[in-house]
Amino acid sequence: MSAEKTAISPTRAQDFPEWYQQVIKAADLAENSETRGCMVIKPWGYGIWELIQQQLDRRFKATGHQNAYFPLLIPLAYLEKEAEHAEGFATECAVVTHHRLEAVKDPVTGKTKMIPSGELAEPYVIRPTSETIIGAAFARWVESYRDLPLLINQWANVMRWEMRPRLFLRTAEFLWQEGHTAHETKEEAIDETRLMHGQYEEFLRDHLAIPVIPGEKTENERFPGADMTLTVEAMVQDKKAIQAGTSHYLGQNFSKAQNISFTGRDGTVQHAHTTSWGVSTRMIGTIIMAHSDDDGLVLPPRVATQQIVILPITPKEDTRQAVLDACQALASTLRNQSYQGDALRVHVDTRDLNGGVKKWEWIKKGVPIRIEIGPRDIETRKVCVQRRDQAVSEKQFSEKDEFIQRASDILGEIHNNLLARATAFRDENITVCDDLETFHAHWEKENPGWLYTPWAGTPEQEEVLSKQHKITIRCLPIDGVKLPATGGKCILTGGETTVRALWGRSY
Amino acid sequence: MSAEKTAISPTRAQDFPEWYQQVIKAADLAENSETRGCMVIKPWGYGIWELIQQQLDRRFKATGHQNAYFPLLIPLAYLEKEAEHAEGFATECAVVTHHRLEAVKDPVTGKTKMIPSGELAEPYVIRPTSETIIGAAFARWVESYRDLPLLINQWANVMRWEMRPRLFLRTAEFLWQEGHTAHETKEEAIDETRLMHGQYEEFLRDHLAIPVIPGEKTENERFPGADMTLTVEAMVQDKKAIQAGTSHYLGQNFSKAQNISFTGRDGTVQHAHTTSWGVSTRMIGTIIMAHSDDDGLVLPPRVATQQIVILPITPKEDTRQAVLDACQALASTLRNQSYQGDALRVHVDTRDLNGGVKKWEWIKKGVPIRIEIGPRDIETRKVCVQRRDQAVSEKQFSEKDEFIQRASDILGEIHNNLLARATAFRDENITVCDDLETFHAHWEKENPGWLYTPWAGTPEQEEVLSKQHKITIRCLPIDGVKLPATGGKCILTGGETTVRALWGRSY
Ligand SMILES: [Zn+2]
Ligand SMILES: [Zn+2]
Repeated sequence: MSAEKTAISPTRAQDFPEWYQQVIKAADLAENSETRGCMVIKPWGYGIWELIQQQLDRRFKATGHQNAYFPLLIPLAYLEKEAEHAEGFATECAVVTHHRLEAVKDPVTGKTKMIPSGELAEPYVIRPTSETIIGAAFARWVESYRDLPLLINQWANVMRWEMRPRLFLRTAEFLWQEGHTAHETKEEAIDETRLMHGQYEEFLRDHLAIPVIPGEKTENERFPGADMTLTVEAMVQDKKAIQAGTSHYLGQNFSKAQNISFTGRDGTVQHAHTTSWGVSTRMIGTIIMAHSDDDGLVLPPRVATQQIVILPITPKEDTRQAVLDACQALASTLRNQSYQGDALRVHVDTRDLNGGVKKWEWIKKGVPIRIEIGPRDIETRKVCVQRRDQAVSEKQFSEKDEFIQRASDILGEIHNNLLARATAFRDENITVCDDLETFHAHWEKENPGWLYTPWAGTPEQEEVLSKQHKITIRCLPIDGVKLPATGGKCILTGGETTVRALWGRSY
Repeated sequence: MSAEKTAISPTRAQDFPEWYQQVIKAADLAENSETRGCMVIKPWGYGIWELIQQQLDRRFKATGHQNAYFPLLIPLAYLEKEAEHAEGFATECAVVTHHRLEAVKDPVTGKTKMIPSGELAEPYVIRPTSETIIGAAFARWVESYRDLPLLINQWANVMRWEMRPRLFLRTAEFLWQEGHTAHETKEEAIDETRLMHGQYEEFLRDHLAIPVIPGEKTENERFPGADMTLTVEAMVQDKKAIQAGTSHYLGQNFSKAQNISFTGRDGTVQHAHTTSWGVSTRMIGTIIMAHSDDDGLVLPPRVATQQIVILPITPKEDTRQAVLDACQALASTLRNQSYQGDALRVHVDTRDLNGGVKKWEWIKKGVPIRIEIGPRDIETRKVCVQRRDQAVSEKQFSEKDEFIQRASDILGEIHNNLLARATAFRDENITVCDDLETFHAHWEKENPGWLYTPWAGTPEQEEVLSKQHKITIRCLPIDGVKLPATGGKCILTGGETTVRALWGRSY
């Protein structure tokens, strides 16, 4: 494969959505199934999810949360209690109506068909999210203010009947975690909402090398039933936005609908203030779109299924075993090293395949570091080091012992490099916009990037602009986000405002 | 609470099934939900499942398996391909027939009801198990013998519409792992089936302190679609059996139905030999019934959500802080120790509650070691140690430093103690039976235990005996299981036989 020809075709520039599909295929991450809109997550992709789970789970536990598990099926009556919430999910619910199958012989074909039977008096929906069923449990569990806060998380599958599915980013079934908490006061619940929002921001930055913009959703974009939705917004390489995680303050909406009430410190019966927050396998789609290149997947080291792959170079039969032994010995030594608190994940590719084929396979799979060891390297005690964040042709020869010492640092450098690259790209593609004409013109461009504007419009005005340009306000960035200064007058109404809105197209 | 009065009422002897429910309630492990037959697994119960998952997952990976994830919903057409398998699950399938809800105002009550809408042309069932959908993926993945073996595991929820649900032991939805593998030859597939069967036996013994009898199921009791089903059978304290895990050799049944075919070494197209194997949250029910006593849950140390709970005794305000500090310091030191490769799980109960209330709560929750530290203990550098495998009234005062050194050993002693106790109980309650009259009489007893007999009957004869006494052949124990010698003639037919059958009542 020459330097000009890329491993993935088409390239990002040629056709970004198709490039995305091809990266997934080349890395063997996932595939479509015959179940409409549902994917099979293959081992290389599921490995990323396992690492995301482990690392997020530690953060949840360190902040006082406990895992639990609630039923997959939600009684319709639960949904009916919170009208706004139910409406938000009604058009995409998978409904279970029968609890049996009957074998019926088709009189025409003679084949046996399975027919639904045993109709349920009360149908169930497969959870699109679990506020209602977890709320029902909370209502049973809470009696007094002493029972609060309740800090629960669930790792689960959920289902939303998506009409235009896309692997990882939008699938009918997806895997996620959903935190659900109940608190005595509004202030505590809002603190929790912000705490988990901050955890997501840190996680994306420090584990996935994705520099998100944290902010609040406008009323139009809020979670159905929430009083406040906080979001972390990632920019990917076609300059679209991906909502990578959300944290909701639900006020007393669900607690009133479901009667999560308690006897307060003053003896009066009060309703709890609840929150919910989640991230999903969509994060894998975000990683792919944020970091990968025209040669395939580029994995941030902390969630790389394998961080280092060692490729034995065995040109001659008589040195073959010595090379294999040296590779296995290096792998064992490296596995005793750690990066960010976890043992290094190292794989030796001993398959009897052409070296170039193997090398390109690991490039396309996004492994951060590739090591080659041949017969001569054993004598010189050197290794050939190649990094996924550098050009395919780049290589460094390193003393083996020095590499062992530096392996963890190199992973850290790769992480920092990916993060710096993504941050620079994001900042280049967020433009301050103070006047309406420029605003309208901006969205005519190809891959237009985001605009940052002063904003004082109504929800209706926001909707008109959104529909006109197929954009949304991604968020109103929170204080502390470093974005350039803008003027003080709303881009639409001209009214004085301190609110700033970030507009963009999104997945 | 006096020594005579037990924390759980009724006792095991009084009403075993009700005792079981009360142990779960007192330990706060799980509860029923409004979703028919589905449970909520509460944090203390889910913690056990997390530990089971972690520890089993390491074994799966160490034996070469990789995790992946497959769709929750299975097209009916998949089930129709393997008739025997489909029949086995048809009566307990949850069927999804619609993908939308519509809000309809009830003309009588004025209330808004949600009505299923958007009927699917092809309904789906929620997976009762995933042989068919994983087989469909395997058919796509396998082309050549070089693609084999495929060694895949999935952690997932499954659903079987149970008519008589019981927390953990039989619930409509449950959590499990299902291994699915495909091999080039029958021999390799059978080796895999036996390997995982052995893993389950070891896991139950070495992690859960449950001495199972490993064996093969008779044709009558096989998994629908399997050629061979291996099982591990646990005896619980009412002398009933629980099938704690199964490993199936599926022959070419699924690979022919689903066309998992490959080009072999000789160039011919062949069908793969497949296996599947699984254990579920049912194991938590088995733990409860195997080890718990009339004071509540008794947890085997390796899967105890907390292994050591430290209870500060703070009678006076002026020494209170010193006691709390000593408790936290001890906890930190202990968390740096490990038992069976995992850091000790230690909790300090700082709640402002009566000491007796707290102590009994941890007894009922089954924590292996309870430590009390009071003001005087700080001066003497002693701790009061109480063990869940000993009487509630027993306590040992130990030098703090010595306890720190020995904590891991004590957990090991508790494990061994539980295992020895369960093994003795099991062996006392397996009776050799060589004649039919004794056999028939045995099942008239209350809590009759298991019988071990020479067996050469037909499946039909087995079914007659089974129905007559509400028993089943739990397994034909594999070679190497130490059971007493029996005569050589089939208990029913009188024919010479080397086959031995283990009969019992089961959950
Ligand atoms: Zn109320
Ligand atoms: Zn075929």
